[in-house]
Amino acid sequence: MAQHLVTFHLDDPSLGAHAPLHPVHVPTGTLVTEAAHTAGVEITQPCGGQGRCGRCAVHISQGDVRRRSMLRLTSEDVAAGYTLACQSVVEGDVSVTVPPQEKIERRLATDRVVAEVEVPIGYDARSMQAIQRVSLELTPPSMDDQTDDWSRLVTALRQQTDIVDVDVSLPLLRRIGSILRDAEWNVSAVFESEIRNLKSKIRLLDLRSVEPPLYGLAIDIGTTTVSCWLVDLISGKVMAQTAEYNGQIARGEDVISRIIYATAGGRNGSSAEMQALVIETINSLIVAACEKAKVDPQDVFKATIAGNSTMIHLLLDIPASSIRLAPFVTAINHVPPLKAIDLGLKINPEAAIDCLPGVASYVGADITAGVLSSGMGDGEQLTLFMDVGTNGEIVLGNRDWLVTCACSAGPAFEGAGVVNGMRATRGAIEEVWINGETFEPSYRVIGNTKPRGICGSGLIALLSEMFLTGVLDKGGNLNSSLMIVEEDSPHFAVHEKLPGDGVSVRGKTRRVRQGEHGLEYVVAWAKETWHGKDIVITHVDVDNLLRAKAAIYAGYTVLAERVGVPLESVERFLIGGSFGKYINVEKAVQIGLLPDLPWEQFQFLGNTSVKGTYLALLNRNERARITEIASRMTYIELSADNLFYEAFTSALFLPHTDLDKFPSVAQALTKA
Amino acid sequence: MAQHLVTFHLDDPSLGAHAPLHPVHVPTGTLVTEAAHTAGVEITQPCGGQGRCGRCAVHISQGDVRRRSMLRLTSEDVAAGYTLACQSVVEGDVSVTVPPQEKIERRLATDRVVAEVEVPIGYDARSMQAIQRVSLELTPPSMDDQTDDWSRLVTALRQQTDIVDVDVSLPLLRRIGSILRDAEWNVSAVFESEIRNLKSKIRLLDLRSVEPPLYGLAIDIGTTTVSCWLVDLISGKVMAQTAEYNGQIARGEDVISRIIYATAGGRNGSSAEMQALVIETINSLIVAACEKAKVDPQDVFKATIAGNSTMIHLLLDIPASSIRLAPFVTAINHVPPLKAIDLGLKINPEAAIDCLPGVASYVGADITAGVLSSGMGDGEQLTLFMDVGTNGEIVLGNRDWLVTCACSAGPAFEGAGVVNGMRATRGAIEEVWINGETFEPSYRVIGNTKPRGICGSGLIALLSEMFLTGVLDKGGNLNSSLMIVEEDSPHFAVHEKLPGDGVSVRGKTRRVRQGEHGLEYVVAWAKETWHGKDIVITHVDVDNLLRAKAAIYAGYTVLAERVGVPLESVERFLIGGSFGKYINVEKAVQIGLLPDLPWEQFQFLGNTSVKGTYLALLNRNERARITEIASRMTYIELSADNLFYEAFTSALFLPHTDLDKFPSVAQALTKA
Repeated sequence: MAQHLVTFHLDDPSLGAHAPLHPVHVPTGTLVTEAAHTAGVEITQPCGGQGRCGRCAVHISQGDVRRRSMLRLTSEDVAAGYTLACQSVVEGDVSVTVPPQEKIERRLATDRVVAEVEVPIGYDARSMQAIQRVSLELTPPSMDDQTDDWSRLVTALRQQTDIVDVDVSLPLLRRIGSILRDAEWNVSAVFESEIRNLKSKIRLLDLRSVEPPLYGLAIDIGTTTVSCWLVDLISGKVMAQTAEYNGQIARGEDVISRIIYATAGGRNGSSAEMQALVIETINSLIVAACEKAKVDPQDVFKATIAGNSTMIHLLLDIPASSIRLAPFVTAINHVPPLKAIDLGLKINPEAAIDCLPGVASYVGADITAGVLSSGMGDGEQLTLFMDVGTNGEIVLGNRDWLVTCACSAGPAFEGAGVVNGMRATRGAIEEVWINGETFEPSYRVIGNTKPRGICGSGLIALLSEMFLTGVLDKGGNLNSSLMIVEEDSPHFAVHEKLPGDGVSVRGKTRRVRQGEHGLEYVVAWAKETWHGKDIVITHVDVDNLLRAKAAIYAGYTVLAERVGVPLESVERFLIGGSFGKYINVEKAVQIGLLPDLPWEQFQFLGNTSVKGTYLALLNRNERARITEIASRMTYIELSADNLFYEAFTSALFLPHTDLDKFPSVAQALTKA
Repeated sequence: MAQHLVTFHLDDPSLGAHAPLHPVHVPTGTLVTEAAHTAGVEITQPCGGQGRCGRCAVHISQGDVRRRSMLRLTSEDVAAGYTLACQSVVEGDVSVTVPPQEKIERRLATDRVVAEVEVPIGYDARSMQAIQRVSLELTPPSMDDQTDDWSRLVTALRQQTDIVDVDVSLPLLRRIGSILRDAEWNVSAVFESEIRNLKSKIRLLDLRSVEPPLYGLAIDIGTTTVSCWLVDLISGKVMAQTAEYNGQIARGEDVISRIIYATAGGRNGSSAEMQALVIETINSLIVAACEKAKVDPQDVFKATIAGNSTMIHLLLDIPASSIRLAPFVTAINHVPPLKAIDLGLKINPEAAIDCLPGVASYVGADITAGVLSSGMGDGEQLTLFMDVGTNGEIVLGNRDWLVTCACSAGPAFEGAGVVNGMRATRGAIEEVWINGETFEPSYRVIGNTKPRGICGSGLIALLSEMFLTGVLDKGGNLNSSLMIVEEDSPHFAVHEKLPGDGVSVRGKTRRVRQGEHGLEYVVAWAKETWHGKDIVITHVDVDNLLRAKAAIYAGYTVLAERVGVPLESVERFLIGGSFGKYINVEKAVQIGLLPDLPWEQFQFLGNTSVKGTYLALLNRNERARITEIASRMTYIELSADNLFYEAFTSALFLPHTDLDKFPSVAQALTKA
């Protein structure tokens, strides 16, 4: 058999990069991973060499290899010379560069919620930002000029800027005199101007002896997760990002139970308590963000807030009961401008609070902000935008028309309502592979630490892998025949010695077991985990996840049907939501969460709500566009639609009762 | 001696009016009062027949009499046939009609502060009033129309009125949903529109299921007295008037000591306490006015407030310290619009609070409001307007120019800082006459009850009478030689039997005596008074009153001098202030408080501040005119003016060091 020379290069400065390792000779047909092993290079293979995880991608810098599968690689990757080591067969002399394995870990080691945010190109605080500052030189008063302090300030503003009319609060007015005198009549005024023309009324926010930096907050109040970005309003840069579970979560997991709690009254709950809980969460996020970026909260002059309609009502303590009851109307969609002190936010008390506008009871400001950040309202392409949080909201359309609907997904994909669920933060299992023969999982953990739980993308991967390997059946039931039972006891001792590491009974696994609440699958053994307890997914968890994915699937299919647009004609399928950025399309299609469309049509946008909020915070024009988007969106009520319930029921299977709708999954099942 | 027939008619329905009494025959030279006595008619003569009080005016319906003195009667009165009975000598047959004596008492029996207020002619709430209401019919929401409550309301406002933009507070927003549903979508909206054009933004104040009446308050915060008028904004009628000492009075009698207290900090005083005190006073006035008029305070939607600059600063808890210290500037003259809830006023929390604009530290909104109500800014006549409260503010000018200054008069003329001083309310001695021979006083009491103290007009009359009868000398010293001392003891017993009623020693009186704090004059003996204690005026009281009148005199003379206008060229001399309406010009000239100008040039306007405030409350245009007046007034600072101190010192005498400035007083002294 022909021998080939394979030379490996480690592209890792810390390991003496670029220096080629001693070349190895391998016969034709050798896998690159095997050749690497021979050369003393261990390439990570979390999926066990099945070509499914993409972690073993290497670069063929010279020569070529035969590629069995290119799953996980884009056509650009392939064109650039990348291949999957576990799926590539040596058929001639090659030079292989192994990318820094550490690099992947390093990326993950930073808190996963801190995504890089690009400042919008051409951002110009002077012309776009509603929060402005100006330095003023005032003539001190004298016996010849006894003008009052306030008029003196307003006159200076008029003379030294284009401002003609100034609004000011009583508490700030009380401080003006001493600030002017402390500053010896040279002050910096911070003000808010909703439109660019300073000839209209501005609102004075603060007066300082030293020009302050200007910060703002983009806040997204999710039913489950609240996200907060601290933004430098001058440069536009995001200085810190924090996120935390919404403090209301203990009072109900979805918006309906929150409304019930807020409306109950007395010991059974109150709207004031709900408001206090979310404000507490926001304040703790603000404090954390300000500490992280070493920012004085008094220098935070604006907060732009998005959230679904219930979250906005509860934030403002506006009765939300009409949201829950037919005909499902909100008290308000376009909230008037507020101040930090109105809500007790721990920033400058005069800071402008801008709650973005919503469309309907179940399509809130998070969606209008999301549509803005997705750009779907700008182009001609028929686009389906989906925001998967505790609720699933769907928008279909383009720059000419926009229709929207909502479906109650529940918080399962946000890690809530799942025994070992958690947010996509350090310690979360975000990707899982299961070996189809041994049923042993391997997983990737955010931050490369011991796992603490499983986040949304991990749960999707887990469902998909369990389904494809037969741990779960089409109906979402755990396969009890995989359990090791009494009669397998002769082999049992092996497990006792090596818990959780291997197979002892062919076609069976100790990982499927009877738990407290029925069957469960062990993803990580106690000894591997951060908290020293097994990480499992239970029968109930699977049920919750199936209901969530079925609601979402039913939502977008019925919406498309109602407006007479076949799903196949959708040119772009945009996915937002707290886990949106990290989920694996293939696996999401395999469980029937996403439709079986060409993968390149899917685009993951992450938390589109906070991104749109950030854009609105930075730019008055973007803010105006959100209002325009909100007014353009036509809401379609699904709750009274029988078609929706039919679609939901049919989607409570993996991937769907009708496998014809998922040809690629049918094919994968055939292979598996 | 010729006998004449004198017939008396009693013009009093309660006494069987118009029926002539049996005529009497009296000799030539008989006084009408004597003839009346003969006829069995007792005509009131409080001044003891000296022709000084005017209370004995009668009407000569047939024939004629010889008039010795016509003091107290205007030329119109004389032309109409009135004469003073004590100064009229019968020289032929006459018919005399005696006006109802009771009528005077009846007028006084009502609370003196409740003056009749005329609604401005042509008042039209629809076009002039900033507070408006409108009834709206809304389409209830349905599954086909899921518009949010707030948009539904705003849309109805747009469609059923000209309103295009609506501002609303968070607390009201919280109530909208339940109000709309309780009212079954037929509501009455109350809103504020600062300008007539509804195309500009309006502010929603309340939403009701039943159209509410609209009330407003005109409030004048005097340093000493706070006045409150409750006004029906639809009809313009004043429904109730209440007045009370400013609760801050215990923390200092003048603005300077109030500022010091407010600035002290800690146990020595605080601005928050000062604010709380005046708000407490205002709230008690509001409660009393609403109870009086049976008005629900929730139906009070606006309060327009005037007061001197210190009062406005303390009301708003804006630091006032710069008012007190050179260069004497206020923190703010034009206060932005506020809401009742900002100040804790016990009316509708959304009610608009409009603090009228001031001009300078010592010329506040009370003066701009006063100038408006005086009309001095409208005509060509050179007018001097003077507001005598705790401070004396003076405005000189006409429609072309207005100059103003202030002088610290102190609260003596408001009854504070005077042992038995009181406000001009029930029980206050408001007029005094002293018999030049017996030194016995007679007095008139507001409400015709036993006296409780002496109000401003009473104090002026008292000073004047004491001066003219020699009880006081030119320097303001009580004449100790009038005292009855040891050597007069033989006659003393008489007094013991008849305390306070008569003379026992010719040219001496028991009413001048040594009190606890020096010499004093007894105006009313304990047995005559409401509280059973002597009512006196002390040496210290006189001093305080002299300083007050000297400050005021110096103020207007120096102001006129500074702008080069001789006092004599002043065509109208308008006097406002809480006592302004009731003081006696002659007596005010006699003590040198007013200049010695023809009496007809003086006009007493009462509380011009609350009147101007009332006009501004009713009419947006009048409100705009106050702002225009404020901007037109040029303030002249007297505190640094040596001329002022010279003028003040010269005026610390009765009537003045230079008697040539008071020829009519010189003449009266010659007569006396």
